[in-house]
Amino acid sequence: MELKLKLYNLKLRHVFRISRGEESIAPIIIVELHHDGIVGYGEAAPSMRYDENENTVINFLKKINVSKFDSPFEVDLILNYVNNIDSGNSSAKCGIDLAIHDWIGKKLKIPISNYFGFDRSILVTSSFTIGIDSEEMLVQKINEAEEYPLLKIKLGTADDKKLIKTIRKITDKPFCVDANEAWQDKNYALEQIKFLEDQNIIFVEQPMPENQIDDTKWLREKVNLPLIADENVKTLIDIPKIANAFDGINIKLMKCTGIREAMRMIHTSQALNLKIMMGCMIESSVAISAGAQLLPMLNYADLDGNVLITNDPFSGIKNEHGNLTISDFPGLGVEPNEKYFATTYL
Amino acid sequence: MELKLKLYNLKLRHVFRISRGEESIAPIIIVELHHDGIVGYGEAAPSMRYDENENTVINFLKKINVSKFDSPFEVDLILNYVNNIDSGNSSAKCGIDLAIHDWIGKKLKIPISNYFGFDRSILVTSSFTIGIDSEEMLVQKINEAEEYPLLKIKLGTADDKKLIKTIRKITDKPFCVDANEAWQDKNYALEQIKFLEDQNIIFVEQPMPENQIDDTKWLREKVNLPLIADENVKTLIDIPKIANAFDGINIKLMKCTGIREAMRMIHTSQALNLKIMMGCMIESSVAISAGAQLLPMLNYADLDGNVLITNDPFSGIKNEHGNLTISDFPGLGVEPNEKYFATTYL
Repeated sequence: MELKLKLYNLKLRHVFRISRGEESIAPIIIVELHHDGIVGYGEAAPSMRYDENENTVINFLKKINVSKFDSPFEVDLILNYVNNIDSGNSSAKCGIDLAIHDWIGKKLKIPISNYFGFDRSILVTSSFTIGIDSEEMLVQKINEAEEYPLLKIKLGTADDKKLIKTIRKITDKPFCVDANEAWQDKNYALEQIKFLEDQNIIFVEQPMPENQIDDTKWLREKVNLPLIADENVKTLIDIPKIANAFDGINIKLMKCTGIREAMRMIHTSQALNLKIMMGCMIESSVAISAGAQLLPMLNYADLDGNVLITNDPFSGIKNEHGNLTISDFPGLGVEPNEKYFATTYL
Repeated sequence: MELKLKLYNLKLRHVFRISRGEESIAPIIIVELHHDGIVGYGEAAPSMRYDENENTVINFLKKINVSKFDSPFEVDLILNYVNNIDSGNSSAKCGIDLAIHDWIGKKLKIPISNYFGFDRSILVTSSFTIGIDSEEMLVQKINEAEEYPLLKIKLGTADDKKLIKTIRKITDKPFCVDANEAWQDKNYALEQIKFLEDQNIIFVEQPMPENQIDDTKWLREKVNLPLIADENVKTLIDIPKIANAFDGINIKLMKCTGIREAMRMIHTSQALNLKIMMGCMIESSVAISAGAQLLPMLNYADLDGNVLITNDPFSGIKNEHGNLTISDFPGLGVEPNEKYFATTYL
């Protein structure tokens, strides 16, 4: 078994702005797992929110020696070893997890969603994310997103109500809202959500900062929109702590370390009666296709990272009007394109 | 896809007595899933505690029409259909779940423990169960169980302390204790466990009745032995309710409907910091081998059903001094023997 790495800079169609900051280039690392004549592809899309960038990912991945393992089927053995190298580094770990799953699916000649035995007949529609922007750009972006029936709007601006009113002048589509921890005062958060209750909103994601879990609990008892935890839930062990403060969780492969942990989180959410959303970072079709393989287990999906970029190095999942079609190709169902092959190994 | 059923009467080496009753014959139903030239084997071992017997199992299984499904890979689709036929019937449902997993493993040519990517290097020792009996028989049984380093003792007799003292005259082996809901008064339960604390005991299983969860919570705060839930936890949704009253759960394939639900329960127990035990009914090597495939995920195992019988219709898992060796054969790793082939289909 051997790992090979490539750095690839995803270019964003628009500068992407949320309450914390903005970006126009998103560096990712593609992990190739070579074994037995098969290449499994994985992806690490680091986020500063979780103290990662392309350098931390490369440093972490270079510490991994997979030559001591017999086969990628030794999933727990390999992933426990990777996990114990260091804490954090969740997107780097995800790169390994995805490459293993892609390899296994290819070896067994089945898509990962079949490997897990999912019912592929019921797939939720993915939302399309609109970042924070000027009123003029917002109008342009929403017009550009005409093909998507479900939007996700980033909030946390100086005047969120005004932003929503602007959107509602252009479209009456349902949308989800993501405050990315922006509302730090519980009464202010309550006022925002009370306003949103009449605006055809599906749910509100992470209204308050991660460390204000008691305020979020207070808030939840007073509002009639589901609250979804994002920054408050990274991995499995975070879920029981927030079960009384939120109605659901946003699982992201890049923060939870991959498909294996995502499955644990899905099962635990089922036990605790929490809705399951899967979100993403700015990601290529490798990671988005991986997330889409779990689509049958989701109540909500926001898997649009690959349609926000202009230079996707892979093809895989198809996004048609927010409907994701899981490929019948084995593994994650992804194929590198020419741009990718032109990139050299690290 | 086609199902075929056989009824088989397991004969117990000794009459098996617990606090609720006794048995010398344990009827099981073997489920054969035929598809694509492969036969997947499953087993239903019904228990009156969960309102099942051989007739309820046969009636339930005869309602199932699998011909409408394309492939056993459609696990969720098939199992959701089976689940929705009726509530309860957990061992009958387990028969289908096991047959599907055996079929998938055979189709993919890998043991189920590899299919799940478990680390097979760490396997806990299984206990060997000693039912309730006369002092004389107890001595005989414990001597017969000499090869097993870890025993599980059934309690709930008129004088459990005397029973333990009798055992401690013969052996100082560690053992687990199972009261099967027998101690109905919390102060009495406390007195029993306080006595057990000095007796080299691993844990106490289900000390009090299922509906006395508050008493069990009270008890747990006062004792220094782990309490394991058995009758209190059937499936996934039962786990959060008992997380504060017990230190772990006993998952049995026959009460939880099979491997698929068992995996959900394992993941949720990890999230809630509960120890994971897997137990069994009186079962043939089909169901015991299925349980043993999950061994790498367990903190405790009591998978001895097949060594308590004299006419096992299958061979599979090897139990050597309580150490279970997972076969490298695909699927559940079981093979029918001649006795089984002599049995006619229902």
